[in-house]
Amino acid sequence: MDTSKDLAAQNLIAKIIEAVGTDLMKSEQIFAEELHTDQPVIRDIHEHVSRFRGKRIRPTLLLLTADACGGINHSHHVLAAVVEMIHTATLVHDDVLDDANTRRHVATVNSRWNTETSVLFGDYLFTHSFHLASSLESTYACRQIGRSTNIVCEGELTQISERGNIDLTEERYFEIINGKTAELCAVSCSLGAYYSECTEEEIAALEQFGRDLGCAFQIADDILDIMGEETQAGKSLGSDFYKQKMTLPLIRLLQMAEPADEEIIRGLLASPSAENWEKLTPYLQEYRAIESARQTASEYATSARANLAKLPDSNSRTILEELTEFAIQRSH
Amino acid sequence: MDTSKDLAAQNLIAKIIEAVGTDLMKSEQIFAEELHTDQPVIRDIHEHVSRFRGKRIRPTLLLLTADACGGINHSHHVLAAVVEMIHTATLVHDDVLDDANTRRHVATVNSRWNTETSVLFGDYLFTHSFHLASSLESTYACRQIGRSTNIVCEGELTQISERGNIDLTEERYFEIINGKTAELCAVSCSLGAYYSECTEEEIAALEQFGRDLGCAFQIADDILDIMGEETQAGKSLGSDFYKQKMTLPLIRLLQMAEPADEEIIRGLLASPSAENWEKLTPYLQEYRAIESARQTASEYATSARANLAKLPDSNSRTILEELTEFAIQRSH
Repeated sequence: MDTSKDLAAQNLIAKIIEAVGTDLMKSEQIFAEELHTDQPVIRDIHEHVSRFRGKRIRPTLLLLTADACGGINHSHHVLAAVVEMIHTATLVHDDVLDDANTRRHVATVNSRWNTETSVLFGDYLFTHSFHLASSLESTYACRQIGRSTNIVCEGELTQISERGNIDLTEERYFEIINGKTAELCAVSCSLGAYYSECTEEEIAALEQFGRDLGCAFQIADDILDIMGEETQAGKSLGSDFYKQKMTLPLIRLLQMAEPADEEIIRGLLASPSAENWEKLTPYLQEYRAIESARQTASEYATSARANLAKLPDSNSRTILEELTEFAIQRSH
Repeated sequence: MDTSKDLAAQNLIAKIIEAVGTDLMKSEQIFAEELHTDQPVIRDIHEHVSRFRGKRIRPTLLLLTADACGGINHSHHVLAAVVEMIHTATLVHDDVLDDANTRRHVATVNSRWNTETSVLFGDYLFTHSFHLASSLESTYACRQIGRSTNIVCEGELTQISERGNIDLTEERYFEIINGKTAELCAVSCSLGAYYSECTEEEIAALEQFGRDLGCAFQIADDILDIMGEETQAGKSLGSDFYKQKMTLPLIRLLQMAEPADEEIIRGLLASPSAENWEKLTPYLQEYRAIESARQTASEYATSARANLAKLPDSNSRTILEELTEFAIQRSH
């Protein structure tokens, strides 16, 4: 365990709780009320799912952005619950797609109940998130949330269709992560800004902040899938390799490898096995593929920070800046 | 083949096309535009799915209701596409749940592509339907559509949780079909009425019309699953029996059977097999369980028709009345 990294993370979490902790609680309350039901089985699943919901990054982004832009109001609490609910829906469906047994050390819905229940409960979360968004006065949020979730689904469908394609281009990789990860971060920030009555220019800057941050986060996740500690990530290492998902470190490795090595690496990528995973690791080190991907994540984090420059100085702006550091430090 | 039944159905379809055919086309156009994408794989799936979309009952109900209530406008065309898109999403996910290979003689998405693609494409249809609903001016439609799809998912989740429960009560059965089938018919009719600027009372009556009609349709479907022609339904007979879904004819059979027979029937229901399906059929005939369920479907159809009495006489109202006949005649 890297203690200094842990301390930095704990320190950041403490600052977030001080800044928007009460608002996160209000948003959690709205989340729970929206999903309140008389059906015991649905209540059980909801309770179970809430145990692996994790870091609340998207609602935190929405609330910090709102605060940095002028102040948090009821619409923000509702929308923070909406983006978290959509994210949770995608997690529940991801576990079906991956046929995963655990997430954050908790049994997934498909392993605890069954695939049918996972599919339907994910749908249930999607429909409730839209229902909740429609409780706001104008259709603006519904429209934005609808557009974003279209892009999220399109990103995931593209990812599935590219699975097994070792020749995935970097351009296509960024198209995919822009959809599946960055889009929901981007809309969280733009909604935070919009409902604080920011200028058009500020809203656009914060949307770009969220998008860049989301990309940095995703690349760091892709690195953690290769290098992280299993216990920490709560999932097996090399899962992208086994699922033949080409991530940035693997794409960079193919780009940089000498022709003779490239041939061998392609062979390993084409036949995922524990043995081939072992064989791949030295190549990742030799060609410094992780460092190359980390450099790109770092550039996204820098770009994200630059977009915050348009906002007045504030405690929440400082936390948002620190989040960009946190996004990439995880992968060190 | 029952030719007189076919002729009646063809006659009804001709009347529907004459009354709202142009509007159905406009709605189809909006449906296609909403799903337009540059990603070839998503285009392929969409094209494939459109081959098993079927009878367009929900958009037809919405448009006929609108016409009977005073006239069809652009909002109706949009909303007809929305309800059809939601219905299509549930079909795509149902095929995952049932692990079905074909629907209406066409390969399902999960058999043609894979389960992952089905789950994500269903999500994609859900999010697009909400995105499309949010293109209308007020949040009213988003709110209604959101609430209805919540109920649809809750109904389906309840059905899954009750699978294998031979003691399913009639009350619970109606709770389930009200969610999974009747709700979307009800909201189709109430939206048709609302956007024609009907009175509150008329909107409520038309919502009830849709709900009753949906129940009649579902009971008829449950009967067809037992009695229908395989080629016509495009699915295997007895599929509810094999999946241990208790439908109205089976619930009635248990209610009416003598104690000694009840014991045997329970044994057959608890161990679904082709052999036991054969053994069950004589009991269904002996206790007239199909007739009993059909009688209830007929009562729902009558109740549906009664709700139309509040509307002025019109061609579309007559067609809606005839639809209630059609709903149950399919099961004769």
